[in-house]
Amino acid sequence: MELIKTIHESRGLRTQWQNEQRRVSLVPTMGALHAGHLSLVRRARELSDRVVVSIFVNPTQFGPNEDFERYPRSWDKDLDLLKEHLVDAVYAPEVSEVYPPGFRTFVTVEELSQKLCGVTRPGHFRGVTTIVCKLLIIWQPHLALFGWKDAQQCILIQRLVEDLSLPVEIVPCPIVREPDGLALSSRNSYLTREERLAATRLHQSLQWAKEKVKRGEKSSRLLLDGVKAQLRAEPLIRLDYAEIVNTRDLSPLETVDSSALLALAAFLGKTRLIDNTLLMRDAP
Amino acid sequence: MELIKTIHESRGLRTQWQNEQRRVSLVPTMGALHAGHLSLVRRARELSDRVVVSIFVNPTQFGPNEDFERYPRSWDKDLDLLKEHLVDAVYAPEVSEVYPPGFRTFVTVEELSQKLCGVTRPGHFRGVTTIVCKLLIIWQPHLALFGWKDAQQCILIQRLVEDLSLPVEIVPCPIVREPDGLALSSRNSYLTREERLAATRLHQSLQWAKEKVKRGEKSSRLLLDGVKAQLRAEPLIRLDYAEIVNTRDLSPLETVDSSALLALAAFLGKTRLIDNTLLMRDAP
Repeated sequence: MELIKTIHESRGLRTQWQNEQRRVSLVPTMGALHAGHLSLVRRARELSDRVVVSIFVNPTQFGPNEDFERYPRSWDKDLDLLKEHLVDAVYAPEVSEVYPPGFRTFVTVEELSQKLCGVTRPGHFRGVTTIVCKLLIIWQPHLALFGWKDAQQCILIQRLVEDLSLPVEIVPCPIVREPDGLALSSRNSYLTREERLAATRLHQSLQWAKEKVKRGEKSSRLLLDGVKAQLRAEPLIRLDYAEIVNTRDLSPLETVDSSALLALAAFLGKTRLIDNTLLMRDAP
Repeated sequence: MELIKTIHESRGLRTQWQNEQRRVSLVPTMGALHAGHLSLVRRARELSDRVVVSIFVNPTQFGPNEDFERYPRSWDKDLDLLKEHLVDAVYAPEVSEVYPPGFRTFVTVEELSQKLCGVTRPGHFRGVTTIVCKLLIIWQPHLALFGWKDAQQCILIQRLVEDLSLPVEIVPCPIVREPDGLALSSRNSYLTREERLAATRLHQSLQWAKEKVKRGEKSSRLLLDGVKAQLRAEPLIRLDYAEIVNTRDLSPLETVDSSALLALAAFLGKTRLIDNTLLMRDAP
């Protein structure tokens, strides 16, 4: 497994792979790897000849009062896991390599980046789409894999790729969950034992809504009222938002249809978690 | 000469050139070609094996009250000129090909895009950097050539390319002028005969300042006072701005140094013209 720190080295390896006609996948991560990330790596292995995983805690996607400094880092463990999973290269640049002095260029998916998580985290998706665009330009992968837990991120990146004609296929991958349903997230490590228990309610409320839809309920208002009531019943949960939107442009849906995404974010203490489900389809 | 309308065809030709190991130059234009554009094409021919010229009047870089609709178009003449200059491909997409329904992604060089022309033309450079980024992604040229008349545009694009690590060399090319000094521009065709005569003052004032610097003057204030006085003396000219800035981040310079760019914009009637000079260096 090659460990790559610079854009120059990345280019070199990428050119070598191109000359060998390899099909290349990129799995962008912020490290602190868990089974969700590893499912992306396995899928990448299935779909391509060469897999590069980037590990970069991207400062521009954290707000000034967010958890950039304390975001979990587990470098040695991450590298062991990636070696075990037969990753070909790890790209782990320094912040100063990605954002050199005088850096001023940002890639924004307008409107969509202001919705859902964009309300509470202004600037977050500007940071995400900028770093992803830059990684896609540097690595020119055939495929890039993302977890569907970050559904809004997946949708924005798909939009970015279409809009700028980036020659890559975006592959959203299913949410990986704990046995009790909690979606895996590096931030779950912040939770106290009580918060961890309470957090199962997030997935339970999504499941409840999906079941209601299966039985014929189509009213977003009724579904969201139910979800919110269930979350309010747990005093450790402070809901940020719960919305039913279409997956195209994240506009609210009054009536559930095949594009309907039920997405929510909630605070447990200081920890903000997100989760979602497609109401009339299986997850990607 | 191949005439290409779609991104898909562009990719195909680009791949063919890559397989043939051709060195590729891109010359982005909005058509209405003049000798300035053709100097870029000639330089591209010297520097590379294959030259593609894009012709696209980019709506997103025009403000709502600007001249998008009446911007000069001379399609047949442009094609004849490019054939004469042995261009390999002309890329002339429809607006709907570049900006498909749902398009929301913009590339912005923050701060620098707000200065100089960005004050009078808010949003202009957001449109420029977005279309240029997209053209660079579609065509993956080794070189992209731009006229230095649009110095701010050159500087922003250089910043964009560095910031996003686009694998291309930006080649700014010298301003081409009429015999009386007026910088060539497609918009010169808007000028009445009187305005055309008055417009020579723009270049004359730049020349005056450069001469003063050659003789030892270093004070931006004194130089700008002189330039403005000369332009005010011509009633057909309404100055938009005249500034002395550094070429790195376009910040104003109190004292002229080797990075000093004297840039100006002025209205003649409804026609807005720009021009500039490097005060202590020759133009690129």
